[in-house]
Amino acid sequence: MDVLTVLNLGDIAQAFSKMGMFPVFDLAYYIVSILYLKYEPGSVEVSRRSPVASWLCAMLYCFGSYILADIMLGHSPVDYFQHNSHILLASAVWYLIFYCPLNLFYKCVAFLPVKLVLVALKEVVRTRKIAAGVHHAHHAYHHGLFIMVIVGYVKGSGVALMSNFEQLLRGVWRPETNEILNMSFPTKASLYGAILFALQEAHWLPVSKSVLILAFTLFMATSKVVMTARHSHGSPFALVESWVCHLLFGSPLGASEDDHHHASAAPASPLKTKEELSEGARKRKVKKAE
Amino acid sequence: MDVLTVLNLGDIAQAFSKMGMFPVFDLAYYIVSILYLKYEPGSVEVSRRSPVASWLCAMLYCFGSYILADIMLGHSPVDYFQHNSHILLASAVWYLIFYCPLNLFYKCVAFLPVKLVLVALKEVVRTRKIAAGVHHAHHAYHHGLFIMVIVGYVKGSGVALMSNFEQLLRGVWRPETNEILNMSFPTKASLYGAILFALQEAHWLPVSKSVLILAFTLFMATSKVVMTARHSHGSPFALVESWVCHLLFGSPLGASEDDHHHASAAPASPLKTKEELSEGARKRKVKKAE
Amino acid sequence: MDVLTVLNLGDIAQAFSKMGMFPVFDLAYYIVSILYLKYEPGSVEVSRRSPVASWLCAMLYCFGSYILADIMLGHSPVDYFQHNSHILLASAVWYLIFYCPLNLFYKCVAFLPVKLVLVALKEVVRTRKIAAGVHHAHHAYHHGLFIMVIVGYVKGSGVALMSNFEQLLRGVWRPETNEILNMSFPTKASLYGAILFALQEAHWLPVSKSVLILAFTLFMATSKVVMTARHSHGSPFALVESWVCHLLFGSPLGASEDDHHHASAAPASPLKTKEELSEGARKRKVKKAE
Repeated sequence: MDVLTVLNLGDIAQAFSKMGMFPVFDLAYYIVSILYLKYEPGSVEVSRRSPVASWLCAMLYCFGSYILADIMLGHSPVDYFQHNSHILLASAVWYLIFYCPLNLFYKCVAFLPVKLVLVALKEVVRTRKIAAGVHHAHHAYHHGLFIMVIVGYVKGSGVALMSNFEQLLRGVWRPETNEILNMSFPTKASLYGAILFALQEAHWLPVSKSVLILAFTLFMATSKVVMTARHSHGSPFALVESWVCHLLFGSPLGASEDDHHHASAAPASPLKTKEELSEGARKRKVKKAE
Repeated sequence: MDVLTVLNLGDIAQAFSKMGMFPVFDLAYYIVSILYLKYEPGSVEVSRRSPVASWLCAMLYCFGSYILADIMLGHSPVDYFQHNSHILLASAVWYLIFYCPLNLFYKCVAFLPVKLVLVALKEVVRTRKIAAGVHHAHHAYHHGLFIMVIVGYVKGSGVALMSNFEQLLRGVWRPETNEILNMSFPTKASLYGAILFALQEAHWLPVSKSVLILAFTLFMATSKVVMTARHSHGSPFALVESWVCHLLFGSPLGASEDDHHHASAAPASPLKTKEELSEGARKRKVKKAE
Repeated sequence: MDVLTVLNLGDIAQAFSKMGMFPVFDLAYYIVSILYLKYEPGSVEVSRRSPVASWLCAMLYCFGSYILADIMLGHSPVDYFQHNSHILLASAVWYLIFYCPLNLFYKCVAFLPVKLVLVALKEVVRTRKIAAGVHHAHHAYHHGLFIMVIVGYVKGSGVALMSNFEQLLRGVWRPETNEILNMSFPTKASLYGAILFALQEAHWLPVSKSVLILAFTLFMATSKVVMTARHSHGSPFALVESWVCHLLFGSPLGASEDDHHHASAAPASPLKTKEELSEGARKRKVKKAE
């Protein structure tokens, strides 16, 4: 009976890790990503004034992870743009979200139940990207554990890691913060995920890759869905991190991410990162801008 | 009779598209480019304080298109610097424009009739660069239509697309604007040219490449010569663009590029882009700086 | 007798140029580099708030020269991170300098006699890096004299050339200055060294590479040790440079680097570059920050 369960779990994980991402999952990824772009203050004005800049930002939001990973591995940063169908699909989503009459498409996909499904699907793609990034790096550098972690990390975090330069494209410059200084939950989870997948790839983690993909996907999807539904940005890692940072790096104990902000000398912008702003405030901003 | 005309046109276009660019046309390109660098406020002080920074900026102005295209295709960004004779020629032009006794060389090449000829020659090089960029990208990615457009675009626009970072090298930082947000005429024309050449390369445009090169060169040279002679920066695309943007992207109709600027929330710098400043104002600035 | 001396010198130079750098010399390089990072204002706070950002900065300080050289030659920027032992050693140094109880490790290595030895060892590594960079570029571009100089230069200067972006990682943005506009002594010496090694590689300098390595190492180590011991940042090149710049580029004669600063319109930050600040001021800052 037990053996059967294990076999079944292995089979399910295997099937899940072989499932194609295009077009359904990728579509969800593009929609949620460009939705976050529209939440960014000023992005609607940019879409009116300079469609080219807006389109480029949308492409960075959708394909930033591929661009960064290609740069890290010394390939052409526009390598992924050879997949015309992906680019066209993302462009269509961009057009519908920013220019659809009556803002209809935006209202549909930003409707909470729809959005929760899309967010869950997006996390499936994120996990697969981390695994693929680590695998790709392992192929290029067999013993390069650090390179595997770095490539998996940029594959999972995507545009967040280059948010300063993405904002610059829209004429916004906020040098006092960046995604490395103030990591949001998806960036942190990508880092931990990349470490796990790199350890698995180096055979230091006694678990098959497909099971790891399934487990990590479930964790990410659950976390993000719960956080989106509750308009929260508290991290499930907070408690463990607080203790580990206190022991290893002498950080003051019990200080939440927010307390760090208050303590920091830099005049932190009130809008921290695109994924940390509460839904309500975002929607009001977007509505006001239109 | 008609067939003969067509043949002759084809022959002329063929001969024109095979004509070597080095050294005459390239020289004109370097002179006009470094002239624009000297028009930039503060560049003369930089040339006195830090010749290395000034030389690097001059190289970015002359070879920025090669650097960007090499980055886009994943090659070494300094690949073009293996052509020692080109670098030496550009360096000589830089030295003469910035340090020639009595400012003699600058006065000669900035003299309007001379400058008009040089500007026309520069556009010949620009068109050839776009065509070469698209061809090069087509060679690397046979079906990568987007990549062809991107590489042709950066080959045509050159340093303009990295103007924020070129300015940073001179200690100037203007994050509120960039060449993508406020495209100047050459940048826009490079984008449209890159699209045309990419369509031609993909056999979607029923015209031979040499004829397209000839036609686009004539259009660019005429436009830029007229604009330089009239100290104007109005774009010949303005009317069509205004309608298309209104229909596709809901931009307010009849709003010229300048109105967009006024409407923008960002405190736009009074100097927009290096190619948009009227000649008179520029010369006064340069004279004052010396 | 004379022949014997020459032979001996040649032998010594040969042996010296073949000496392995790992781990002793590399360790000294990492220690001095991360020491300079700790001197940077705000870096201690960053190490408490965001260990990941602090670690990344430390890696840029230790391996910036490899990253830049790999970018210049079109390789993967994280290529060097495949050497796990080097990364682990540098990470251990970073941990000890920033988080060692009672700040014990920092106090040991910042103790002047110890530091002078480490600084001398660091210059040995710097010279070897310049030579290796030029050699590497020569291998890729046989006649690319400019490329050899550029690659040797970035190999010698390392993180200094990307200091604006390294600071950005820590939330600091000082666009009004950069290492090219205001070169510190090590950056200038790296440029001159890269030119010498490139000329040697092109057989225009009638001296063997090992002798050049020995001579340049002795010059660099002596200069840096004297400068560190005297808390000075005057450059031994100042007099010659002043005359050459006056003759070639019309710079005002006798103006020291500092006078240039005062004359510059940009509101120069009181802290110029990480290697130009006097030791006393640095230590006070670091102590205050803890």
